[in-house]
Order: sequence, then C-alpha cells, then structure tokens
Amino acid sequence: MSEKYRGLSPAEFFHRNKEIAGFSNPSRALYQTVRELVENSLDATETHGILPYIDVEVRLHEDRPEWVTLRVADNGIGIPAHEIPNVFGRVFYGSKYVVRQTRGVFGLGVKMAVLYAQMTTGKPIYVKSSTRDSDVVGEYLLYIDISRNIPHVQKMRIKKKNKNWHGTIVRLTLEGAWLQSKKRIEDYIRRTALISPYATIRYRSPDGELLFERVSKELPEPPQIGKYHPKGVDIEILKDLIRRSNNNDMTLAGFLEKYFEGVGEKIAQEFLTWAGFQPDTKVKELKLADLEKLATAMKNFPKWRRPRPLTLSPLGPELLKKGVKSILKPEFATAVIRPPSSYGGHAFIVEAAIAYGGEIPPQDNVLLLRFANKMPLLYDEGVDVSRKIVDSIDWSIYKIKFPAPVAVVTHVCSTKIPFKGVGKEAIADVPELEHELEIAIRDVARRLRIYLSKLEKMYEVKRKEVTIRKYMGEVS
Amino acid sequence: MSEKYRGLSPAEFFHRNKEIAGFSNPSRALYQTVRELVENSLDATETHGILPYIDVEVRLHEDRPEWVTLRVADNGIGIPAHEIPNVFGRVFYGSKYVVRQTRGVFGLGVKMAVLYAQMTTGKPIYVKSSTRDSDVVGEYLLYIDISRNIPHVQKMRIKKKNKNWHGTIVRLTLEGAWLQSKKRIEDYIRRTALISPYATIRYRSPDGELLFERVSKELPEPPQIGKYHPKGVDIEILKDLIRRSNNNDMTLAGFLEKYFEGVGEKIAQEFLTWAGFQPDTKVKELKLADLEKLATAMKNFPKWRRPRPLTLSPLGPELLKKGVKSILKPEFATAVIRPPSSYGGHAFIVEAAIAYGGEIPPQDNVLLLRFANKMPLLYDEGVDVSRKIVDSIDWSIYKIKFPAPVAVVTHVCSTKIPFKGVGKEAIADVPELEHELEIAIRDVARRLRIYLSKLEKMYEVKRKEVTIRKYMGEVS
Ligand SMILES: Nc1ncnc2c1ncn2[C@@H]1O[C@H](COP(=O)(O)OP(=O)(O)O)[C@@H](O)[C@H]1O
Ligand SMILES: Nc1ncnc2c1ncn2[C@@H]1O[C@H](COP(=O)(O)OP(=O)(O)O)[C@@H](O)[C@H]1O
Ligand SMILES: [Mg+2]
Ligand SMILES: [Mg+2]
Ligand SMILES: [Mg+2]
Repeated sequence: MSEKYRGLSPAEFFHRNKEIAGFSNPSRALYQTVRELVENSLDATETHGILPYIDVEVRLHEDRPEWVTLRVADNGIGIPAHEIPNVFGRVFYGSKYVVRQTRGVFGLGVKMAVLYAQMTTGKPIYVKSSTRDSDVVGEYLLYIDISRNIPHVQKMRIKKKNKNWHGTIVRLTLEGAWLQSKKRIEDYIRRTALISPYATIRYRSPDGELLFERVSKELPEPPQIGKYHPKGVDIEILKDLIRRSNNNDMTLAGFLEKYFEGVGEKIAQEFLTWAGFQPDTKVKELKLADLEKLATAMKNFPKWRRPRPLTLSPLGPELLKKGVKSILKPEFATAVIRPPSSYGGHAFIVEAAIAYGGEIPPQDNVLLLRFANKMPLLYDEGVDVSRKIVDSIDWSIYKIKFPAPVAVVTHVCSTKIPFKGVGKEAIADVPELEHELEIAIRDVARRLRIYLSKLEKMYEVKRKEVTIRKYMGEVS
Repeated sequence: MSEKYRGLSPAEFFHRNKEIAGFSNPSRALYQTVRELVENSLDATETHGILPYIDVEVRLHEDRPEWVTLRVADNGIGIPAHEIPNVFGRVFYGSKYVVRQTRGVFGLGVKMAVLYAQMTTGKPIYVKSSTRDSDVVGEYLLYIDISRNIPHVQKMRIKKKNKNWHGTIVRLTLEGAWLQSKKRIEDYIRRTALISPYATIRYRSPDGELLFERVSKELPEPPQIGKYHPKGVDIEILKDLIRRSNNNDMTLAGFLEKYFEGVGEKIAQEFLTWAGFQPDTKVKELKLADLEKLATAMKNFPKWRRPRPLTLSPLGPELLKKGVKSILKPEFATAVIRPPSSYGGHAFIVEAAIAYGGEIPPQDNVLLLRFANKMPLLYDEGVDVSRKIVDSIDWSIYKIKFPAPVAVVTHVCSTKIPFKGVGKEAIADVPELEHELEIAIRDVARRLRIYLSKLEKMYEVKRKEVTIRKYMGEVS
C-alpha cells in the first residue's frame, strides 16, 4: 500500500516524455530529427568560421514503408573520437553550455533522435567524424543505455585519415511519416537556406533533389564565447561562478571584473559603492544573504553598459530585408535591428522586418514569420511571444485595415533563447524580450505607415488629376 | 580554440531552462508554483482514498513587495521522513513513475518551485510531513545542490507525533508578481474545486479568503497501479521490462501475461501464434531484431482487449455535466464519456461536454475549457490538441452559426498525458487521442444539433400559431 520512491535517469525521463521534445508522432518526429541534425551541422560550421556545406538525405525503406533513414553530412569542425559516445549517447552532454549564440543549447537534440530511432526501429546511430587538427577518423555505431543514461557502443573503428577531410556524418533509421511531414521539412530547409544565405544545402528526398547554393560567400563574424551580463543574474549563477573560480583570495571587485561582460575596474567600484559592499571583501566569505543582496543590487543598478554584441550573430537589417523580399516578394519591405539588451544575465538582440503588398495574400491577421538564432520556427506560433506582441498592437494606427497583405518577421538572437519547450518552437514571454520586440515591431510599422501615407497622397493627387482632367474634358 | 565538452546535472538543466517548466517570469512562476503544490496535495489525498482538505496561503512581504510566501497544507498520505530530502531536492525523483493516473508524472514540479525560490530569494523550502502509519513527524529546511542534483539539508528535526496527524505542509518564499498573477491563480483554484467536487480548498491571499467546501463526500474509486497495455509499447519498454523481470526462465507467454493489462493465457497464445513466435521462447534469449518484430506485432495485433479503466479515474458524464452547468450556467448541456483506449501502452479515457446559451456570451469561436487528469489547463490553448480538433470541425453542420454562445469542455484521463511541456498546459497531437477527442466532441455536438432542431421546430410552430392567430384576427 505504501508508495515506492525512485529516481529516473535523464534518458529515462525523455524516453517517457518524448512529446515535450517535439517527438509526439511519427510525422513530427521526422521533422524534429531533420531539424536537430541540420542545426548541429550549422553550429559546427558557421559558428566556427566555416562556410557550411550540408548534405541532407531522406530515404524510405522498400520493405518497411514506415521506416525512414536520414543521413546528414557536414564540413564542420568534427568531434574528437573519444567524445563521440557521450555527445550522441548521454542526455545533457555537449559543447554548447557556454555564453555564445548557437542553435543548440540543451545538449539534448541528437540524443532525442537516437532515442526515437532505437525505440521505434531498434537501430543504433551511425556516426563518422574527424576534427580539423586530427589525423584520424572515428566511426561509431551506438545507442543509449536508457536506464543509466550512458552510451552503449556497438562497434567502433578509428582509422588514419588519408585525405584532409573534416566534418561529421550521421545516419539513423526511425519510424517516420514521410507523406505527412514532407511539406514541413521542405519548408524548414527552404527557410533555413534563406536565413543562412552563406550555406549550401543539398536536400535529397523521395521527391527529388533540391540544391540551395550559397548566395553569399561572406560569413558573418562568428559569435565568440563571452561572459554573463551583470544585470539579472540570479543567486545560483553567482554561487556557481564563485564555486568555479576556486580562488579563496578573489575579491568582490575582482570577481565582477573577471566574470561579467563590460565590467571594468571603474564600474565595479562604482557599483559596489552604490550597493553598499566593500570592494575588497572576499567572495568566498559572502553569506547567502549577501549573495541575495548582491543579486538584487546587480539587477537594479542603473549604469551597467549594454552588452557588446560579440557573443551574438544577428543577420543585420540589409540581409534580413533581402531575405524577406525573396521569401515574400512584397511591394514594400523594411527591417530594423535593436541595440543589444539582456535578461537574466544573457545578452540578446531583436531584429524585425515588415512587408506589405506584392505577393503577400490579404489576410485577416498579420502574417508572422519567426526566427530564433537563425532557426526558422514553424510550429506553436499561437503561444509565441512575437504572436502575443503582434496581436496586442492596434494596427489601425499604422493605417492597416484587415484583411490586409501585411507580414511581420521577427528574429531573436541570444546566448540563451527562452524557449518554452525543448522542441525549440516557441519563445516564452520574458518581459525584457517583450519590450524590445514591441519597440522593433512598432518601429517598422511606423515606417510602413509613412509609406502607406505617401501612397495615399499619391492616389489623392492622381484622383484629383483625374477629376480635373475629367472636368477639363467636360468644359473643353 | 577547440570545443570543451561537459555534462549537466538535471537540476542544472532546469535551472538554466526554467521557461520550459512554466517559470518564465515572476507572474507565471507564482501561478506555476501554486499549481505544483496544490496538485501534489490532491495526488496525496484523493489518489489514496482520502477526502482532500487543502489549505493554500499566499502572503506578501511588507519590506520586499516582490517576495511572496506560499504555504500549502494537506491531509494526505505524507512522506516518509527519510524520503523528504530526495522528493523535494532531487530532480527526477518521486513516487509517480508507475502506471496510474496522477496529476504529477514528471518528478519535477516541486523541485522547480524550490529552484525558483532559491535562485530568486535564496530561501530554502520548509517541509513538515508525517505518514499515516508513522509515529514521527519530519521537519526539514532544504535546498538543491544544483550542480550535483542532490538535496542539501540545512536543518532537520524528527519529532514524536502527539496527535494523529498525517499530511504535508510546504512553505517557500519566491519572487512573484502577485498583482499580475492573482486572477489566474484564483481561476485555477476555482476550476480545481469544480473538477474535484469532493475536495475542500481554503484559499487565503492578500485579497481575502475563499472557502470552497466539498459539495460531495463521495470520493470516486481511487485509480490503481496497473500494467502497460500491450498495444503500442516500444522496443525500449520491452527491453526494460525484460531487464527488470530478472528471471532467466521467463517465457514469452509468461512475460506477456505477467506484464501486460488484459493479457491472459489464451490471448497470449493466440497473439504469439499470430505473430509467428514460439510461446515457450525464453525472453532473455530474444535478440534486438526479435524485440523489434515483437513490438511491431503487438502494435498491429487486432484482438487485444480494450484496457480496463482501473488505473484511471474519470469524472463521469453526470459529474462533468453538473460541473459545466455550475461554471457556465448554460441553457443546454450534455456530456459523454468514451470507452478506454490506449496509445504507446498507456490507457486513456476522453470525456467531453458541450454547453449552449444561457450565460455563455456569444463568441466568434467555440469557447474551450480543457482539463487533464482533473487539472484545469489555463495556458497555451492555441497549441492544444483539443483546440486543433474543435477548430477542424465545420460547426455549421451542427446548426451553429457564429457568433454563437457555445462551449466545449474536454477532459483527458490517462496514466500518461502526452503533455507538450513540463509546465503541463497543452496536450500534444497523438493520433489515438485525436481520434477519441473527435468522436467525443462530435457526439455531444450531435446532441446539441438535435436540441437546436427541436428549438427551431418549436419556434416554427409558434411562428405558425402567431401567423394563424394574426390571420384569424384579421378575418374575424
Ligand atoms: N554535426 C556535428 N558536428 C560537430 N559537433 C556535433 C555535431 N553534432 C553534434 N555535435 C556535438 O554534440 C553535442 C550534443 O549535440 P546535441 O545533443 O544536439 O545538443 P546541443 O546541440 O544542444 O549541444 C553538441 O554540443 C556538439 O558538441
Ligand atoms: N503534498 C505531498 N504529499 C505527499 N507526497 C508528496 C507531496 N508533495 C510531493 N510529494 C512526493 O514528492 C514526489 C515529487 O513531487 P514532484 O516533484 O512534484 O513530482 P511529481 O508530482 O510529478 O511526482 C511525488 O511523487 C510525491 O511522492
Ligand atoms: Mg543540437
Ligand atoms: Mg508534482
Ligand atoms: Mg513547454
């Protein structure tokens, strides 16, 4: 009768609850698997200054029509052979737990794909990889020992490298509903190519081959690994940094300078005086109540510098506008980028664009295209913060009367996007983010109003001309 | 330059990604904390045959207006003293990883509340608990050692029990936006009381006191711990059950009979013959390919019995209709319960109600009220499977012309609700569930159409009477 208590391993947790990572049915699971692999490949190239070449192949099995084999190959930085088992076979393991803009952030994506493959087809994942400076290639067949959350290597081989290849090839076989998911997958690849115009993506599927060749060889400045912004870090982040500093002599001033973005000697002193701390207090001696006071003061101090955008890699208004024009073919488009801001210690930048007319079909509501860290977000728009902001705006003040052919594009870049789910489809309503999104959207909306006013005036002038001409005709 | 790889503890993961558990801002976090504690209290009472008495108190701090202290006390089964540290201080630890309908299922909820409290106010959680058969009361102050995912006990005391109390009292202090969340919280408590009419809930807040006294002393049959349903279990579940069976002599027939709901000797034999297995094959000798074949056959076998509803605890159409009438005060209401079904090895039952007219305001769309395992779902309706089904129906065939005063209520009960997020707000579109929801909703919609047709006819008759009377008046 009495309850039995036990713990679950992280892999058991996600095996039981695959829906929360977007693996709710064979159609969505296939889409999600494509995403996770493509996003890992883009992170392994672009983020490290490599022009991405990504090859995606979807193949159906003749004898098992519900089985799909997916292969993704890239020319990225590769993975050291000894890390391959963990990065593919241990939930919550990866290289992206740093302060830097990447598509991946959870250390979970590819493991969900492996879990889904092994639970539906029983097949392990095949991985082949080599890093740039290594002289070997590692090949693995592995699956996840779910109850222990450790990789189980079925086969492995380390070979000498005979050509100068670096990159990663991943192949897995899962149950997937191709017919139901193919439209979304193609959409996803198409929009990914658009938001990463320096990538070449080859996509082969049962429906044929698509080649998205890079339209630009200019890679944006790769994001750098940076530090937390001081505004909004919580007590536990402070504790963790102090613990990691592993330095019994570190003073409060030294701590702030070393671990926080944009904090030099002068600002550190000014802040500590403002907050009522002694700059030479040893951080190891701070009590919990002191940390709470410190975190609160850091949140409220009005003079932190805005974060520098070094950790981020936005598109920029030019490229964004270009992308919008090529997707939507509107009559008018404009884009804006906001200065960097931060929430909870994480820098972020919001970009937004608006497009009007042309090939945009008139609709009862603003058409919304969402991107986050250069990933297109296709599902769950109804609960995304961008949708919330767009819907809260009275568009009539911008001269929009629905049905109208108007589209808004939002792009949030951050060292940590506050996704609502590990499937990375919707962004949560964090107040700082809402604020910036609203400013950006209203800014482009204002420009649209100016454009529409000009149009109106032009029509007005034309109408008058026509009237006058008619009148002249009548009197002549 | 080269990447650094590392693992995160589950507590680190959720500390970093609190948004995915519904802790995205101080307003939502307060709402979510209330939910997690109240749902634990209901699970600890109702699920174990105890008429729930739950006391919820929200208190603001005079000197720190952004600090909220929340206290929830129940008369539930309590927690053995030695388990208290783990259940409150270790992510993925709990007593609900069994095949039984409960509100909790992730082993995460209260830990999220503890994490949020300690990261925003630095305060530990206070817990006092005693089980029914124990003669001691355990009291703890604890927080979570995030990087190691273990409880850190700050203070503890085990006292002899001097009265016959059993239950649990939890108290924590977090940053919360009371003004922004109070409406949702009250809504949540109100709707919880309605869907659990045998519970007494006392709710004290800065706005005053509300007492929801139980309207029924009849507790529904508590759900029992059961087994997986054979249809749809995946390869990894099979592996896990075989591993746990820890019995080298177990045959396939014996395995199926022991571990699956509704599988007796006869059906086991019939299935194994159908699937091409020898009933006396030892399960320990099955290869991966055999397990794959077994899982596929189990999914496709057409003769499994429907799951018995012993693990589930639906409301029943009478109580649901009563609840609907009391919330919505409509002119017409009807409710239906579907027979048990299953997905991925988990039994589920769908209940639905429809209500029309009365105090329901006419709207452009069907008003939807969602419940899952007796929890009201208030957020993220836009991505819930019930919304998807409701929106896919052409309501004109049920004589509904919008704007119309029509509401649909859905209640999904399952040993595992496929929530899209750990915040438990939206249900994913699992095909088996969609199917049952659609049947249930169309069923009540049809009854509404019959009602509306009758109304129409009555009006028609009245209109004719009026016309005739007018005519008679004219001729007389
Ligand atoms: N194609 C790839 N090239 C290089 N490294 C990769 C690749 N795919 C995965 N990895 C490594 O595996 C880790 C885990 O990947 P994943 O589980 O998808 O989590 P995340 O991308 O969120 O870090 C990544 O952090 C990265 O270090
Ligand atoms: N009020 C309570 N009474 C009895 N047990 C409780 C209570 N609150 C929590 N628990 C125990 O703590 C465990 C963990 O709770 P939680 O983290 O909320 O996860 P879940 O509810 O999903 O199991 C529960 O499974 C239950 O065993
Ligand atoms: Mg990834
Ligand atoms: Mg719980
Ligand atoms: Mg979520």
